[in-house]
Amino acid sequence: MPQYKLTYFDLRGWAEPARQLFHLSHTPYDDVRIPMADSEKSWEKLKDLLNVDGKFDIPQSAAICRFLARKFGYAGKNEQEEAWADAIVDQYKDFSVAFKTLIFAARAGKPQDEILKIRYEIFNPSRDAYFEILNGILEKNPSGYLVGDGLTWADLVIADNLHSLEKLKAMDDDNEMHQNLKKYKERIYSTPDLEDHIATRLDSEV
Amino acid sequence: MPQYKLTYFDLRGWAEPARQLFHLSHTPYDDVRIPMADSEKSWEKLKDLLNVDGKFDIPQSAAICRFLARKFGYAGKNEQEEAWADAIVDQYKDFSVAFKTLIFAARAGKPQDEILKIRYEIFNPSRDAYFEILNGILEKNPSGYLVGDGLTWADLVIADNLHSLEKLKAMDDDNEMHQNLKKYKERIYSTPDLEDHIATRLDSEV
Repeated sequence: MPQYKLTYFDLRGWAEPARQLFHLSHTPYDDVRIPMADSEKSWEKLKDLLNVDGKFDIPQSAAICRFLARKFGYAGKNEQEEAWADAIVDQYKDFSVAFKTLIFAARAGKPQDEILKIRYEIFNPSRDAYFEILNGILEKNPSGYLVGDGLTWADLVIADNLHSLEKLKAMDDDNEMHQNLKKYKERIYSTPDLEDHIATRLDSEV
Repeated sequence: MPQYKLTYFDLRGWAEPARQLFHLSHTPYDDVRIPMADSEKSWEKLKDLLNVDGKFDIPQSAAICRFLARKFGYAGKNEQEEAWADAIVDQYKDFSVAFKTLIFAARAGKPQDEILKIRYEIFNPSRDAYFEILNGILEKNPSGYLVGDGLTWADLVIADNLHSLEKLKAMDDDNEMHQNLKKYKERIYSTPDLEDHIATRLDSEV
C-alpha cells in the first residue's frame, strides 16, 4: 500500500474531505498539521499538499481529493457520475469565493457594518443561488446522495462546508431549503466509518 | 461515436479549451453559441453545458473539459499526471477570481480610478503569484508542456487565458517571466490540428 502524507493546517478546511476519504477506505496516512500560530504563512497562502510514497507531491485540495476518491472508489461509478461529482465541486468552488470573502473579512477584524454589508450583498445571494442548485440536484435524486446511488467525494466536500455554514449561522431554521440541506448533511455525517472520525476530530470553525 | 453538443456564449471563454479538444481529436460536435445580445442572461450567470448523445448533460466548464480530455487522451498519461493537470487548472481557477474582478469592473463601466485600483491592488498581485507558479513548473519540465512530456488540457486552459491576458495588456514586454509565458503560449498555439482552428475562430476579448 502506498505511503500517504497529507500536509495542511490544524483545521478541517479543504483537508477534511481528504481525511474522510482515508477514514472511509481504512487507509493509514500521515496527517501532518501545521499549527496556525507557529506558521508565518497566513491561512490565505496555505499550500496544501499530498505526498505519495515520498516520491511525488500533489498540490491543490480539489485535485488531492479527486485523486484519492478515484483510488478509493468514491469518484463516481462511471464517466458521467465522475463528471457530475467534478461539476458539483466546481459549483461549490464558485460559491466559496463569497464564503471566503466573508470569512476573511471577519478574520481581518473589519468593522461590523462592513461585515454585514458583505454578508447581505455578497455572501447571501451567492449562498442562495448555490443552495438552490444543491436542492434541485437532491430533489431529483431519490438516493439521498448528490451523484448516483452512492457516496462520492462531492458529498464529503459539500456536507463539510454545510457544517461550516451552520457554525457561521448561515443556515436558517425557518427556511425549508436550508433545513433540507441540514438533513442531507446529517445523513452524510452519519455514514458508517465516518461517524467515529467526526465524533473525535478537531471541529474547527471552518 | 457519441453526439456532442456544447452550449456557450459566442466567446472563447471557458468553452474554448473544450472546442480545442474537439478539434485536436477530430471529433465532430455541435458548437451552439448563444448571442450575448439576444440573451437575458448576463455573462456572470452563464451556465455552460455539454450534452452527450441527447441523454445527459454535464455543467461546469472545468468538469466538461476534464471529461473530454479523458475521452480524447489529453488528461495526462497516468494518475499522477492527471492529478497535476487538475491541480494546475485549480491554480488557474484561483487566479481567475482576480481576473474576473477586473473584467467585470471594466464591463460594469466603473470609474477609471476604481478599475486601476482593482488592477494594481487585486489583479496584479494575484497574477504575479500565478505567473511565478507557472514559470516554476515550466522551468522544471524540459518538455515545454506543463505536465509530463505531452499536451494536456491544462496547457489548453492556461494558454488560452494567457492569450486573454495579452489582449488585456497584462503581460509586460520587459518582464522575462511574462515573456517566457508568452513563448509558452505561442508554442501551445502552434500545435498541429490547433493552428487552423485558432486562425479561423472568433477571437473574442476573453
